[in-house]
Amino acid sequence: MVSVGVIGGGQLARMMTPPALNLGLEIKVLAEAEGSSANLATTQVGDYTHLDVVRAFAKTVDVITFDHEHVPLPVLEALEAEGVKVNPPSKALAFAQNKLKMRKRLGALGLPMPAWAEIQDAAALQAFIDSNGGVAILKTPIGGYDGKGVRVVRSAADASDWLANLPQYGGSLLAEEKVDFVRELAQLSARRPSGEFRAWPLVQTIQEDGVCSVVLSPAPKATKETLKTTAAIARAVADGLEVTGVLAVEMFEARDGRILINELAMRPHNSGHFSIEGSVTSQFEQHIRAVSDLPLGSTEPTTKHAVMVNLLGVDDSNDFVRAYPEALAAHPSAKVHTYGKGPRAGRKMGHVTVVSDDAAFALAEAKGAAAVLLRG
Amino acid sequence: MVSVGVIGGGQLARMMTPPALNLGLEIKVLAEAEGSSANLATTQVGDYTHLDVVRAFAKTVDVITFDHEHVPLPVLEALEAEGVKVNPPSKALAFAQNKLKMRKRLGALGLPMPAWAEIQDAAALQAFIDSNGGVAILKTPIGGYDGKGVRVVRSAADASDWLANLPQYGGSLLAEEKVDFVRELAQLSARRPSGEFRAWPLVQTIQEDGVCSVVLSPAPKATKETLKTTAAIARAVADGLEVTGVLAVEMFEARDGRILINELAMRPHNSGHFSIEGSVTSQFEQHIRAVSDLPLGSTEPTTKHAVMVNLLGVDDSNDFVRAYPEALAAHPSAKVHTYGKGPRAGRKMGHVTVVSDDAAFALAEAKGAAAVLLRG
Repeated sequence: MVSVGVIGGGQLARMMTPPALNLGLEIKVLAEAEGSSANLATTQVGDYTHLDVVRAFAKTVDVITFDHEHVPLPVLEALEAEGVKVNPPSKALAFAQNKLKMRKRLGALGLPMPAWAEIQDAAALQAFIDSNGGVAILKTPIGGYDGKGVRVVRSAADASDWLANLPQYGGSLLAEEKVDFVRELAQLSARRPSGEFRAWPLVQTIQEDGVCSVVLSPAPKATKETLKTTAAIARAVADGLEVTGVLAVEMFEARDGRILINELAMRPHNSGHFSIEGSVTSQFEQHIRAVSDLPLGSTEPTTKHAVMVNLLGVDDSNDFVRAYPEALAAHPSAKVHTYGKGPRAGRKMGHVTVVSDDAAFALAEAKGAAAVLLRG
Repeated sequence: MVSVGVIGGGQLARMMTPPALNLGLEIKVLAEAEGSSANLATTQVGDYTHLDVVRAFAKTVDVITFDHEHVPLPVLEALEAEGVKVNPPSKALAFAQNKLKMRKRLGALGLPMPAWAEIQDAAALQAFIDSNGGVAILKTPIGGYDGKGVRVVRSAADASDWLANLPQYGGSLLAEEKVDFVRELAQLSARRPSGEFRAWPLVQTIQEDGVCSVVLSPAPKATKETLKTTAAIARAVADGLEVTGVLAVEMFEARDGRILINELAMRPHNSGHFSIEGSVTSQFEQHIRAVSDLPLGSTEPTTKHAVMVNLLGVDDSNDFVRAYPEALAAHPSAKVHTYGKGPRAGRKMGHVTVVSDDAAFALAEAKGAAAVLLRG
């Protein structure tokens, strides 16, 4: 029996549960709290920032992996020193936890990115803004996600609060070129400790207010050149950062044709939820296989198109299940995923995927089902 | 929150767990023993033949359904009288539990079957054999499955032991014509309490030693007439027997062209496992939806073909997971399902499905993966 331990009880751990069950592998979750999204597989509740908590959990499984990227590196390094298998390993996760470290490493690998600079004072920030058309994207290197820790700045004064509290963000901020992009793309892939690598079709992601809203698989009208570039980038990142498990590389397709790396995630990712129904092997099954160092599965699409629409909470009373009679009757091809989280405005509470050989049908059905569910 | 209670902790309850999780519905299992196949969702362990055990379980859920057909009718009738929702209801299950009752009801509905007779003594059996070409299929009306409780008889003497113990089988035996069939077919469908009905594509099932070995979806080269007949039969059985949830109708395609009903199952069935990957809505998701009286999902195929191969235990040391490195590397498109049961020769321990637009590829890959796994 192979036993996989997942730190974090969110929807990603929840969605790793079915493929582990199908494969007959054991899955155990260390959740932050009782009643988490990954409740069914939760075997321990505790604080993942405490070494003794994580160590006790690690003793019950064969390999540790993650629902999120927030476990402190010293905790993971201590476990690794004790012989615990951690996938992705701390040396890879270091780049996912710190955007500045990530930019430096991608730069050393010669990979294409927006212009960027490490910022430690107002003068440096102003200089970056001035030399990049009067605007910059400013990010806190650690702790940001889903649009949090990101700000558009047009003068150093726009960041005076962050600049006054630099130690809280690791001592520096990250300034990036505001890319004039025509769309955002994501390349999902997976890599085993042994090096085996497989990538899914390139997808287009559509964001609203900094949060992923819709994913189109495959990315419509991607040129051969784009497909070649994005596949090569994913492979270079996976190998260069020694990622194990699923890797999501979010990219901009700039108006001038450049493909530029935006963000990385070293775990199953929102841009890959389509793969549950849309691929022979889902990102959740692949992650379980990769972190267990089992051979990877085919990432071929099942149908020509898959469309995923996120269900972001509208208010504190959202109840998708209440809307099932109407939503499921009107949209029999919609695959509805509800994460079992309490409702809250803006919260990722579920998603809908529709697979079809007809792209327009898939988009209309997924959006239609989501609209009904969100009224629930 | 809708909560579905499944009686029985076998692989069918196990495979109902992922779709319940995806839909955000609660699933609870009353298992026969600790460590059952449906362990992850097991909330109670007890004897399903005891009313008090089942009643206590029923109080924790919104609806009761089944992993098997062996819960005594008086237990279910008592619960129904107390207002518990049971799907399929006892009045439908009565036909699944007793093959003689089933034959009588199907006869009253005018549905096509092999010639049959209720047998209470040797003379009646000999007469049936004599008028059916010197051979008959003799079945115990209750308690048979996977080839158990079924015997080919060429004289009444071949059944002297059963005839001497008639009360144990409900007082009668069921004799059936030994159909000269070219192949076996199965029509899977689902029906809600409200009457909504959906059917999957007709499949061909290949049996070895009375146990399902391979399922081909769709059934190769089925004529329009056959498809029309089998669809009509499934609908007539579902409506006529007031089945709720998934219904599997196993049929013979006789050499003379007749389609004849062989067996019924009122639950997800081995002939429908292909639907996990091969259909927009799997039989397990559909069963959960149907018994909860939620609208049914599309039963469209995802790819042109799906092939399922059962993993029947070879000996007491089978360990599929041990064979994963070799099996998954050689067959990346194989979707392996391992039921978490202890190994035993002939036991249904898992299955492999391959979906593809190429039927020959799907069959070869599924059989290839199964062969490697069974060596594990």
